Amino acid sequence: MSERDIYQRQGFAGAVGLGERPALILVDFVEGFVDPAHLGGGNIPDAADATVPLLSAFRERGWPVAHTRVVYADDGSDAGAFARKCPKLLTLTETAPISQILPPLTPRQDELVVRKRQASGFFETRLMGWLTWRAIDTLVVTGCTTSGCVRATVVDAVSNNLRPIVITDCVGDRAMGPHEANLFDMGQKYADLMTRDDFLAASGRLVQPRRQ
Amino acid sequence: MSERDIYQRQGFAGAVGLGERPALILVDFVEGFVDPAHLGGGNIPDAADATVPLLSAFRERGWPVAHTRVVYADDGSDAGAFARKCPKLLTLTETAPISQILPPLTPRQDELVVRKRQASGFFETRLMGWLTWRAIDTLVVTGCTTSGCVRATVVDAVSNNLRPIVITDCVGDRAMGPHEANLFDMGQKYADLMTRDDFLAASGRLVQPRRQ
Amino acid sequence: MSERDIYQRQGFAGAVGLGERPALILVDFVEGFVDPAHLGGGNIPDAADATVPLLSAFRERGWPVAHTRVVYADDGSDAGAFARKCPKLLTLTETAPISQILPPLTPRQDELVVRKRQASGFFETRLMGWLTWRAIDTLVVTGCTTSGCVRATVVDAVSNNLRPIVITDCVGDRAMGPHEANLFDMGQKYADLMTRDDFLAASGRLVQPRRQ
Amino acid sequence: MSERDIYQRQGFAGAVGLGERPALILVDFVEGFVDPAHLGGGNIPDAADATVPLLSAFRERGWPVAHTRVVYADDGSDAGAFARKCPKLLTLTETAPISQILPPLTPRQDELVVRKRQASGFFETRLMGWLTWRAIDTLVVTGCTTSGCVRATVVDAVSNNLRPIVITDCVGDRAMGPHEANLFDMGQKYADLMTRDDFLAASGRLVQPRRQ
Repeated sequence: MSERDIYQRQGFAGAVGLGERPALILVDFVEGFVDPAHLGGGNIPDAADATVPLLSAFRERGWPVAHTRVVYADDGSDAGAFARKCPKLLTLTETAPISQILPPLTPRQDELVVRKRQASGFFETRLMGWLTWRAIDTLVVTGCTTSGCVRATVVDAVSNNLRPIVITDCVGDRAMGPHEANLFDMGQKYADLMTRDDFLAASGRLVQPRRQ
Repeated sequence: MSERDIYQRQGFAGAVGLGERPALILVDFVEGFVDPAHLGGGNIPDAADATVPLLSAFRERGWPVAHTRVVYADDGSDAGAFARKCPKLLTLTETAPISQILPPLTPRQDELVVRKRQASGFFETRLMGWLTWRAIDTLVVTGCTTSGCVRATVVDAVSNNLRPIVITDCVGDRAMGPHEANLFDMGQKYADLMTRDDFLAASGRLVQPRRQ
Repeated sequence: MSERDIYQRQGFAGAVGLGERPALILVDFVEGFVDPAHLGGGNIPDAADATVPLLSAFRERGWPVAHTRVVYADDGSDAGAFARKCPKLLTLTETAPISQILPPLTPRQDELVVRKRQASGFFETRLMGWLTWRAIDTLVVTGCTTSGCVRATVVDAVSNNLRPIVITDCVGDRAMGPHEANLFDMGQKYADLMTRDDFLAASGRLVQPRRQ
Repeated sequence: MSERDIYQRQGFAGAVGLGERPALILVDFVEGFVDPAHLGGGNIPDAADATVPLLSAFRERGWPVAHTRVVYADDGSDAGAFARKCPKLLTLTETAPISQILPPLTPRQDELVVRKRQASGFFETRLMGWLTWRAIDTLVVTGCTTSGCVRATVVDAVSNNLRPIVITDCVGDRAMGPHEANLFDMGQKYADLMTRDDFLAASGRLVQPRRQ
């Protein structure tokens, strides 16, 4: 029996569904995560390219956009357990070139930039409060890596009772095995998987600005 | 280049190391997660068997032990996004036979039993405060499933700056592909992987009761 | 210059305002907090009486209702720092008579009952996720004590970017000085203060069920 | 019966006690909170002065020190519910002169500076993880305002099972009524109250450096 069969027999892969008010998150699309000599490589550059039109669509519709970056102190004084496992994270300081968001995806002034030190974009950050204030119920997830910060962000999103939608061609990883394995896990248990174009086609009915 | 080579070249798989004060967590070792007709199967029964002597060792040394269970309300009124993906979780109610901890691992009165509704044992539970009060710095992780609640708990542990140690023969999954893929991810990024016997051999030097 | 003048000159006491979707929370309306021989007294019984019609109004309109209780383990094994300051909290166990919600306010099956060990109804509990799933943006707060669990819950509500509305005649305290002082603090910085009847009059325009 | 008698009869004001490893936190000692024309005044300047020798003592002993600042985005795009109540908070941007830590208390490079948007220094910040990594069990609290960010930080500290010690002559407020009322609440329920000199005298026996 295949793995997919085991999960199907146990009733996994239900649909979390689209809600009414989506926000887009771009997880760690920074220079160091596209560069295979640093922390990136694989299909991450393709994922970043594919995200450009999705970002434009959110901006045109006036829907909220958040970006995450890993940022450690220049002297590493805020390093902790995670940096023991992945020491190169400490090179991602506020001003390091490898720590800057890719130019085609540069945040606008009114978009949230979350500085984080852990895998999840939610952990010890302002992200959840920012989403709550905007009455967001659906988190559209792009970025890298699929097996790392994307997954951790998705697990926290569903745990916070948001509806996570992973855009399969807009997430990437340095290695394809973990990329595929984590798409499988997320699709079975934590998020709906959609291609960018399928999401854009389905999202027409979504959302209306609300009074603040 | 293999996946392991890619990760090695990028400096992953550092050692988080053992701290001074460990606690043991048994994630979701309940009837429904050993039964392949419900949510279990695979190597989960073996993992539960292997955990019995480890639990005994913690008890003999007087080190803290916590158990987790997924518990939803009898009428499902606390269901949320996660239950949309995995509807069978809603059958894990307080008194359902499939929701009970396996008899060889039955909690003692002085051990913590965390009722949770999300994947991570930390999410919206009392776990972290309980560990902080006991000055725990190292979380020894067993349970199921490797690709689900174990991994989510490990990611939150390392994010909370605990040192997670995954006991490889004491964690299990319904399917072996996700089991192996998630051991890989955790070992590279979030936790040290040790066999039970290696942990027990190394833990002799670990520390102790402190005044409360 | 009076205290109110100092705050006014510095621009405090802005209006957080009513949102679109309110939920009601009843904080710790249990036997032990009305009984002056235990942890209660003062105007808490009056606050409980005044809350009965408000609870009815929420139920009639189908708006979400949550209750909190302090619940410690029978053997006190989950006691921590807070119980050092307030040892009597440990008597509030699951089945102790003093720990039961007052009969006129008994929760219905579909209402959330949050068991907590800390002052805030949000701390290490499922409350926030439950509110997020229901797209709640406004938390109408009643209960006791004003200077304790009510205030802690209000501070966490506003920090989570909910709009807290404290119903002044539906919150109570064992002593009037702290009651008044904390209404002042909350009204200046964290919540709008409204009487029950003013809230009910203003709430006509609120809310519509949403698809789930 | 006086308020203190009511609390005494109900068993409040237990001692949380000193643990083994203290950290110092300086809450919001920035220019805008000493200036009565902005958000400060009262006894806040005195509290800041009294904190200088305490900060020196922690530094001499090599004990961890954390500072908090309220920091909002230059365009206010991260404003939420709290800023509705206290609109002047939005003037506390990263580079605004009123938002800078007082010169006699300027953070050293190895000290943590927590940027926050809510009252509590713990809310959506890296503070708790930073303390956990250093095995801190006791949080020595100074800063302003007593009735605002100090209290919110203290409530979160005790909820996280740290032992909060409020240094009574090192906390201040814009108005004396709320200052006294909140010292009363904290001393009864959430923290031990000590003068600076009493803390320094008692802290000799406290422990320190641990291997990291």
